[in-house]
Order: sequence, then C-alpha cells, then structure tokens
Amino acid sequence: MQLIQNQKTILIVGLGLIGGSYAKGLKKLGFRVIAIDTRQAAIDYAVQNKIIDEGFSHNRPDAIQSADILIFALYPKVFLKWIEENQCYLRPGAILTDVTGVKSCLVYDIQEKLRKDVEFIAAHPMAGKEVYGVENSDDAIFHGANYIVVPTEHNTQAAIELCKDIGKLLGFARISELSPEAHDEMIGFVSQLTHAIAVSLMTCCDNEELVNYTGDSFRDLTRIARINDAMWSELFLLNKDALLQQMDVFMNEFSDLREALAEGNTEKMREKMRLSTDRRKLFDKK
Amino acid sequence: MQLIQNQKTILIVGLGLIGGSYAKGLKKLGFRVIAIDTRQAAIDYAVQNKIIDEGFSHNRPDAIQSADILIFALYPKVFLKWIEENQCYLRPGAILTDVTGVKSCLVYDIQEKLRKDVEFIAAHPMAGKEVYGVENSDDAIFHGANYIVVPTEHNTQAAIELCKDIGKLLGFARISELSPEAHDEMIGFVSQLTHAIAVSLMTCCDNEELVNYTGDSFRDLTRIARINDAMWSELFLLNKDALLQQMDVFMNEFSDLREALAEGNTEKMREKMRLSTDRRKLFDKK
Repeated sequence: MQLIQNQKTILIVGLGLIGGSYAKGLKKLGFRVIAIDTRQAAIDYAVQNKIIDEGFSHNRPDAIQSADILIFALYPKVFLKWIEENQCYLRPGAILTDVTGVKSCLVYDIQEKLRKDVEFIAAHPMAGKEVYGVENSDDAIFHGANYIVVPTEHNTQAAIELCKDIGKLLGFARISELSPEAHDEMIGFVSQLTHAIAVSLMTCCDNEELVNYTGDSFRDLTRIARINDAMWSELFLLNKDALLQQMDVFMNEFSDLREALAEGNTEKMREKMRLSTDRRKLFDKK
Repeated sequence: MQLIQNQKTILIVGLGLIGGSYAKGLKKLGFRVIAIDTRQAAIDYAVQNKIIDEGFSHNRPDAIQSADILIFALYPKVFLKWIEENQCYLRPGAILTDVTGVKSCLVYDIQEKLRKDVEFIAAHPMAGKEVYGVENSDDAIFHGANYIVVPTEHNTQAAIELCKDIGKLLGFARISELSPEAHDEMIGFVSQLTHAIAVSLMTCCDNEELVNYTGDSFRDLTRIARINDAMWSELFLLNKDALLQQMDVFMNEFSDLREALAEGNTEKMREKMRLSTDRRKLFDKK
C-alpha cells in the first residue's frame, strides 16, 4: 500500500470530538495539522495540548490555501455552507474529505458545487463517544473500528486511495467502500435505528428508581441514549426515508416476537433467539 | 452491619455461570462451599480449580443435610421440582435463597410447598455474561452491580438480613428490596425488554456484510443478543404479562418518535433526545 507522505498540511474544519481525534492521530504521524473552529476555546485547548500546530476561530484564507488535505467534521448543513463560502480559497489539487454520518443528501450536492480543480471524497469513520468536544478527543477510538469510503462516479481512483490511506494511518481495522445510497441504508440500520431505540427506551419509562435495579444489559442498550439532540435530529431528518424504513423493519420483527410470546409459542421464540445468537457471534471483535 | 459467619457450609445447587461465580466469591471469603450439578464435568472443573470444596452430580442427601445455606441457580421449573423432591433432606433451620430472574410465578409456590422449619428468601443478582458454564464464572461480575432481595410476608427479618449479607459479602454495590410483583415489572423492563429488543435487532436484518460497517453502538445494543434460548424463552413465558406490557410501552414510545420523524417535527425529536440524555446520565457508574 502506498501511503500519503506526512510532509503534507492537513486542515481540520470543525474541531469537536471527531475532528480533534483525527487531529491527534494525524499529528502523531508527523503531519502538519491546522484547524478552524468557531469556538476559540477549542482552538486554544488544542494548541496548548499540542493536538494541532495552529488554529483559527475564523476562516483564514491563507490557512485554507495552505492545506493539501481538508477534513470536514461539521454538521451537514454547516458543511455545505462552508463549501459555498470558502471554496474560492482552496489550493488547486486539494483533496477534501469528511466524517459526516449521512451521505446521499450531501455528497452529490457538494461534488456538484465544488470547483473542478479540487476533489471531495466522502468518508465515514464508524467510531465515536457519547461525550463531545476536542477536550474529549482520543484517536484510540479509531483503533479496530470500521471506516467506510463513499465514492461516486465523479471520484478519481487516486483520491479514493488517499482517503483509504487516511483510514489506515489512523488505525482503522476494516476499510470498505459503499455507494452513498448503500451507506445511508446501512447507517439507518446500524447507527440511527440503534439511537432511536436507545432514546425510546429511556423516554418510555419515568421510574427514577431504575438505577438501583438495573444490570449491564440496560446500561449497554442505553449508553448511546446520551445524545447530541441538535446533531442527531439533523442526521435523522437528512436520512429520513432510509431511517423510517429501518424503523418499520425493526418494529415488524419486534411485533412478531411479541406475538410469539403472547401465543406462548416457545419454539418460535427459541428459533429467533438461536438465529440472533448465531448472527451476533460474527460481531465479536477479534 | 452484622454479617454471616464463614464457618457455615453453603450448598450451590446448579453450578453454571452464576452458581459458579457465587461459589468462587464465597469460597474466597472462607465458607465451605459444596455444589450439586447434573453435569459431572462442571463438578470436576470446579473441584480441580478450587471453586468448590466438594461437589456431586446427583442429589446426595448427606450433602443437602450438611448445608446451612442453599443457593439455587437453576431454571425456574427445575428449581420448583428440586424442592418438591429433595426438601425432605434439608437441615431444620436451613436458609434457601436463589438467583432466578422471575419471582411472582415462583416465590409464593415455593414458600407454600416448603417445610415450615426452613425458610426461602428470594434474591436476584443483576449481573451476568453472554457466555455460560462454571468454566466462565467470575465473581468480579458482582462488584459494583445491583442486588435485589425479594421478600414476601412469610419471610423473617433475620432471613432478609442474611440474604442481604450475602449480597454485601459478594461485593454488590446497591442492595434493595422489592416485592415479587414490583420485581417482575421492573425486570420485564430493564432485562427482558432489552433482550427482546437485542434479539429483534439481530433477526430483522440478514445483511451478512454488516460486521464490516458497524460501530460500537450496534455492538453494544446487541451484545445480549447472544442468548441462551432455553433459559430466556422460559423466563419470558414465566413473566409473560409484565413483559408484554413493557413491550407495548416501548413500542408506543418508539412509534411516537417515528411519527415525529415522519412529520419532520424536529422540536419533538429534540425534546425526546434531551429527556433521554438527562435520564441516562443517572445511570453512569460512579
């Protein structure tokens, strides 16, 4: 594998938990890492803790121009607006990538609007934490995790390879490619549906004593119920059709299990439990 | 607190994951720990690894008679049958407790059938693993976990205190009391509903590629989808009414979130997410 050279300058736009974790990992590898974030405190923290080499709380043209690679870790709508307003400053040949959790609604738009002498190749690192901000960033969350590159027909093989290289350098275990549509269907299931379930589990019961009785299963299922409501409501809406479909698929299956229980159909319940057990075994991390 | 003295002999009936973990913890504390399990290999393993002092693969009258305290870690129906067939051997004054995951359907029956010169006080340790057998036992799973004592009006204060002492000695963090009915309602929610959700998440989608794309949220929500189908289908059926009710409560709330998404009602989604976040914070282990 031919990895990108670390003489390059990487600009992180949006220095939150994920942007900060990218910055940490990439700086350790020897890249010059700079960042833009509207929150001055995030920039100050990152500079003081040597997470970045330099940072700005506004869109400095010379900083944007100095970047060979730009990584966008912004809310989807903010990302689109940033491109419209600041793409004029990009260095010709710059490669743009991102960490955004939805793709179809964004990737085509950005590729269409973008100058033709730069290239945007979408990516989705499947890692996170239920806390926020560069202050909680940690590049170890990428180790062993999945990384998905989301190319369209407008992408060059060189940019796709560079984007995969970033994933490899950061320590992701499995790197794959999906189309924007396949990505959104999959993410509607493994990420958005699971968050919708966790939230519903927490909101459907107002028993304040639960914490005294619960076991690890409830804790595990609701870990992600601590959720950034601004970001996740935007992600849900931007992937509305795929998520609604996955919610229905889940609800049908859950109702089917409910019916088996109501009927006292032990064999049907056991069959589902055995299938579930067999499938889940594949997911244990090696 | 006045804890039980470790000169006593404790008999574990059912030497699986939980029975084995009790044995390990209690033996370390200096009790004489003996066990009965129909699986000779479990007894052999436990003796060789000094998890128990002595063990039998059949119901030896003298072993049963020697026990001051008996801890039952059996499937509910097997537990009931054991009492019917073997209570004649119990030493007068013996205290019986258990680890069974359902209570209303069991506790009253056993207390009614039981000889009047011994006492059964029910308990539920809220800890487990998604693997089975004494070979996987580990008393560390109790440290920091919750322990629920489930008395009825037939129990003496002395037996309730002794049962709590066992929980304290094993390192449980929070020890509480619930009636059988309150226990079953609560367990229908925090344990059985979560298992039903995890199973449904695994069975509703047959995409074998998912393992390449998933993040930790899906892994966390489905950890308990590796499930002992014989045991859990029995637990579900024995707590059928409470579980069906909790499934309906969850489904209504989940449908409500679905509707908010379908309508594009951002504020309603965010409200649920904020409530979920606030409630979930209480559950983080100190």
